[in-house]
Amino acid sequence: MASEHRVVIIGGGFAGLHAARKLRWADVQVTLLDKRNFHLFQPLLYQVATGALSPGNIAAPLRGVLKHQENTRVLLADVQGIDPVKHEVLFAEGGIPYDSLIIAAGAGHTYFGNDEWAKVAPGLKTIEDATEIRRRILLAFENAERETAPEVIQSLLTFVIVGAGPTGVELAGALKEISTHTLQDNFRKIRPRDARVILIEHANRVLPPFSPELSAAAEAALKHLGTTVMTGTKVTQIAPDHVRIERDGREETIATRTVLWAAGARACPLAAAVAEATGAQVDRGGRIIVEPDLTIPGYPEIFVIGDMAHFAHQTGASLPGVAQVAIQQGRYAAKLISRRLRSQSMKPFHYRDLGSLATIGRAQAVAQFGRVKMSGLLAWMTWLFVHLMHIVQFQNRVLVFFQWSWCYLTWNRSARLITGDAGSRRESAPAPGATNPRRNMSGTG
Amino acid sequence: MASEHRVVIIGGGFAGLHAARKLRWADVQVTLLDKRNFHLFQPLLYQVATGALSPGNIAAPLRGVLKHQENTRVLLADVQGIDPVKHEVLFAEGGIPYDSLIIAAGAGHTYFGNDEWAKVAPGLKTIEDATEIRRRILLAFENAERETAPEVIQSLLTFVIVGAGPTGVELAGALKEISTHTLQDNFRKIRPRDARVILIEHANRVLPPFSPELSAAAEAALKHLGTTVMTGTKVTQIAPDHVRIERDGREETIATRTVLWAAGARACPLAAAVAEATGAQVDRGGRIIVEPDLTIPGYPEIFVIGDMAHFAHQTGASLPGVAQVAIQQGRYAAKLISRRLRSQSMKPFHYRDLGSLATIGRAQAVAQFGRVKMSGLLAWMTWLFVHLMHIVQFQNRVLVFFQWSWCYLTWNRSARLITGDAGSRRESAPAPGATNPRRNMSGTG
Repeated sequence: MASEHRVVIIGGGFAGLHAARKLRWADVQVTLLDKRNFHLFQPLLYQVATGALSPGNIAAPLRGVLKHQENTRVLLADVQGIDPVKHEVLFAEGGIPYDSLIIAAGAGHTYFGNDEWAKVAPGLKTIEDATEIRRRILLAFENAERETAPEVIQSLLTFVIVGAGPTGVELAGALKEISTHTLQDNFRKIRPRDARVILIEHANRVLPPFSPELSAAAEAALKHLGTTVMTGTKVTQIAPDHVRIERDGREETIATRTVLWAAGARACPLAAAVAEATGAQVDRGGRIIVEPDLTIPGYPEIFVIGDMAHFAHQTGASLPGVAQVAIQQGRYAAKLISRRLRSQSMKPFHYRDLGSLATIGRAQAVAQFGRVKMSGLLAWMTWLFVHLMHIVQFQNRVLVFFQWSWCYLTWNRSARLITGDAGSRRESAPAPGATNPRRNMSGTG
Repeated sequence: MASEHRVVIIGGGFAGLHAARKLRWADVQVTLLDKRNFHLFQPLLYQVATGALSPGNIAAPLRGVLKHQENTRVLLADVQGIDPVKHEVLFAEGGIPYDSLIIAAGAGHTYFGNDEWAKVAPGLKTIEDATEIRRRILLAFENAERETAPEVIQSLLTFVIVGAGPTGVELAGALKEISTHTLQDNFRKIRPRDARVILIEHANRVLPPFSPELSAAAEAALKHLGTTVMTGTKVTQIAPDHVRIERDGREETIATRTVLWAAGARACPLAAAVAEATGAQVDRGGRIIVEPDLTIPGYPEIFVIGDMAHFAHQTGASLPGVAQVAIQQGRYAAKLISRRLRSQSMKPFHYRDLGSLATIGRAQAVAQFGRVKMSGLLAWMTWLFVHLMHIVQFQNRVLVFFQWSWCYLTWNRSARLITGDAGSRRESAPAPGATNPRRNMSGTG
């Protein structure tokens, strides 16, 4: 009775999940592949990294989300490549056939050729990244409390964030809030409010995708919070105990033990494998350059969407790697597949910009909806509402709402756990007043 | 103004945290040492392991809990031993002096000489243990969905829990609930409700510390849920794909990929170091045998309390390793230190048994308060209330209450995440219908 048309979707992020959902009533058999068993609400990942939310609050098990969608199955799989001739998706040992394929495996970080920075300056893409960043932030304060040398204490209380896109700005605001309010009275030797938060951006303003007025508003808000903003600044070196930067032609060294990387996204490695197999072109960010209908040239049955795709048929510039683009592309691909089965065609993909939002801190955000620009409380409330409504699963929505309200009222962030086996083992440093204090901290790496 | 009397507390579990809190108004300087930065509510750890709660919900940052207690500081430290002559607590490189010392570093698992079982059969003592067990349980279902060989599917859907104390019973009940309800409709090939949950106990009844009637009630409830209970059964071998057991003199093999260890606690390694330094006696579980006032013989300034202590001055049998004992001992030690400073004495420690509780599943628990024994709904509601009230931090209490209510109404467990880098890498197995299916699963280890 059901059609034999097999749709395989690689990736359960915004793009893949919305494609799958849109195919709910289509006469196809859907297989959603992901190497993780949950959909992650990445826009709130920085709140896990800063102890405001628990990982479970921003993750929804894919099986649970799709359990009533009978034409769809979910499989855990780490896809290695595709065979576009045999119409197969390839795993480490085996494959699965498709009639239509939607590739939406997302993006990771790039350190622009400096891969050795990855160890010292973690990025924020996965739950594990978030708990690792949380661990480093909290351990920096713990180590500072135990340390005796003033210059080491100062470098432990200096936090450098590279990249002032939405994630960098949000991390900087949250870090300042933690040090000023959340950790107040928590320590006996150090004053967490003395912590310096330095936000470094290569472009000449923060939030480069936004309008210049909003960038200025965001920068003013960050400075009001006490964050040091360095625009037009290039990072030339990252080491366990310092960062070297260059601005106005001069080099400078910042002593720090905690560097967070919020610059540079790059399509996941699968993109290169797909490009090689299909002869598709990739851009500098490793993203596959797609046709106006989101397919690969010469392979109308293969869609590439979301952060892995470079789509530039409207404006010349490619669409940004944000959730709205991914969602709309997922829905488009699903719809085109359904229409083709009924021998109908469809106009090229058109991105409808619903606006951009970034939060800076309590009651501070910037928003841009077409010509409407907002900053301050109203933008912040919009940000809260939009994010709350997009969280998958009602239960998580309530949990996040409660924790946000609680955090707002008390400044408390309850999920301040230092976890991970490496973490617990690395903490064997001496206490102040120790009879034989260890002089050299092992760093944050 | 403040006294110079330095109290050092090792461990921020129930015993150590309650000792610290009791010293709030005492004229002493308290230092609380822990290798983790949070107090863990261990009785609910199994709920993290089974996806009902997030780690953050049952952990409270020690600094936050004690931030207004001005005579107390918290330090992260991995204590290696003590020097009872110099009155020092020793870390890897250094030490910290004390006038009174409270040792409350807790217990870990013991595999009764079969340490090689630890890899295959993880125990449940830390947050990392809980997320690892959660990962294994969820991956077993995922792997079963992908597998084609019926005998492998069956072994993947067989869960063995060794030890039928409260933790084992609670894990078994929760696992049965997950497979019967939570994962319903989540899979397309396997039926999660076909999963077998086998609870193995060496004693001749479950919950050996309880009265025989309650053990019988618990066993009946477990069987009603569909759990296989094997009492009087000894585990002789644990391997990645099977468990060997012996009962009634006969050996038997159970094919399984998931074994959870809920048997055998042993005092943490610090106990041995303390015993060596002080000449104290230890029992078979590595616990230090303490005086009637909870101190080490010959060292009236050193207290050992909680799961590390063997106290047998009332009944001959040592007190069980439960939260109530730890809390009462923590308060006693703190009070005795305060009284000594005022040159007052105190009667020996006397444990007041407030009762025992264990839950089996929804609306099913057993409780024993002196001569009063309960099972069923009333015991379950008591269990809920008692646990909710003992959770540190109001915010977590509300979060847990909401998630329990939600879980009760919908059977859903939202924190069903497979996390951990090892986990995400291990998932590269083929899908069913794969062109070259991998025949041998890599096991759950």
